[in-house]
Amino acid sequence: MNNPFAPLPEPPYYAVIFASRRRGPDRGYGEMAERLSDLASGQPGFLGMETARDSDGFGITVSYWRDREAIHAWRDNALHLMAQRLGKTRWYDHYTLRICKVETARKGAEQE
Amino acid sequence: MNNPFAPLPEPPYYAVIFASRRRGPDRGYGEMAERLSDLASGQPGFLGMETARDSDGFGITVSYWRDREAIHAWRDNALHLMAQRLGKTRWYDHYTLRICKVETARKGAEQE
Repeated sequence: MNNPFAPLPEPPYYAVIFASRRRGPDRGYGEMAERLSDLASGQPGFLGMETARDSDGFGITVSYWRDREAIHAWRDNALHLMAQRLGKTRWYDHYTLRICKVETARKGAEQE
Repeated sequence: MNNPFAPLPEPPYYAVIFASRRRGPDRGYGEMAERLSDLASGQPGFLGMETARDSDGFGITVSYWRDREAIHAWRDNALHLMAQRLGKTRWYDHYTLRICKVETARKGAEQE
């Protein structure tokens, strides 16, 4: 199993919180999500990405970035890719997008 | 189905991003998560909460707060509740916690 946790660099840096509810069938979503993730990984200033989706289609994806400039460059490239591929396919019935400055960060693991 | 999206107030406000990987069986986790969620809802400065968990146990919970003072008060109460209930139960094998200032926020819905 791949490690689902993003690296935890020293703040400050930026987080993009994307919450979405998927429409029913996949309609190429999995492939598109993978391509977007690959695109992000090659983007300057990309620090990591975490994603979780419930069985009922609600999901949260958080990507981490060095600064706002990196987010803007990534957004332009992502929109370009999606515009090429999207056609009339629709994946979400609702989504929210928040851009945040990470101020503190820590990790933990419980001990038996 | 309940609305899984948190309200989207005008920034600035704060987000707590909690990513975690669950250990195998439930061991009272569901009940605890529900109690923590109830506790947060009654807390001054609480704006909303979103959560998604994969079938393989990796989850992201984001709670939204008016300011850092509200987060600190909530943390103290949550730790108190968990200390009372936790006993020797362990729910996570790893987690990360980030506190962020939300700078911009927007929503969208695709049109057919």
